Amino acid sequence: MARLVVMYKTPRDGAAFDKYYLGTHVPIAKKIPGLRKYEISQGAVASPAGASPYHLVAILHFDDVPAIQAAFGSAEGKAALDDLPNFATGGADVFMFESRDA
Amino acid sequence: MARLVVMYKTPRDGAAFDKYYLGTHVPIAKKIPGLRKYEISQGAVASPAGASPYHLVAILHFDDVPAIQAAFGSAEGKAALDDLPNFATGGADVFMFESRDA
Repeated sequence: MARLVVMYKTPRDGAAFDKYYLGTHVPIAKKIPGLRKYEISQGAVASPAGASPYHLVAILHFDDVPAIQAAFGSAEGKAALDDLPNFATGGADVFMFESRDA
Repeated sequence: MARLVVMYKTPRDGAAFDKYYLGTHVPIAKKIPGLRKYEISQGAVASPAGASPYHLVAILHFDDVPAIQAAFGSAEGKAALDDLPNFATGGADVFMFESRDA
């Protein structure tokens, strides 16, 4: 299994971000081929010290890293990437890795 | 459900980190009360541009954020936190949030 972690930094307008993310981006991203599960944070993304620079974290599950790479190369993956500037006004940090139970 | 995401930055000695993490830290962390599932990255933590500043990502599953806070306050949670300086020589970024399926 593999994970694609998308960490959205605090946007200019949090309410507008949430509305667009849930109403428009999630339906686009759900079409990405190979996507097995799609988790998103609800409410604050906190750090032990308190606030964090992140507004929302999405964890997308795929079978393996090649499946993530194939997803990025697909028309549906490109549509999801092309949608980011429409709402991710604070930018985003993106990480991918193979994973297993510890 | 809630997630505790621990992102370990590149340590001074990656092989030593891996040996200690898997052999010593994971058994300590698995004793944390309320821990439902414990996922760890395998191999490189990549970003779309290539390398990332992170060596290993752990995603710990709990029922909710109060359960994470209770875990941090437990003797087992404190033992896991106290163990970090023994191997996390690059430091770590820690985030927690409630989560749901998108």
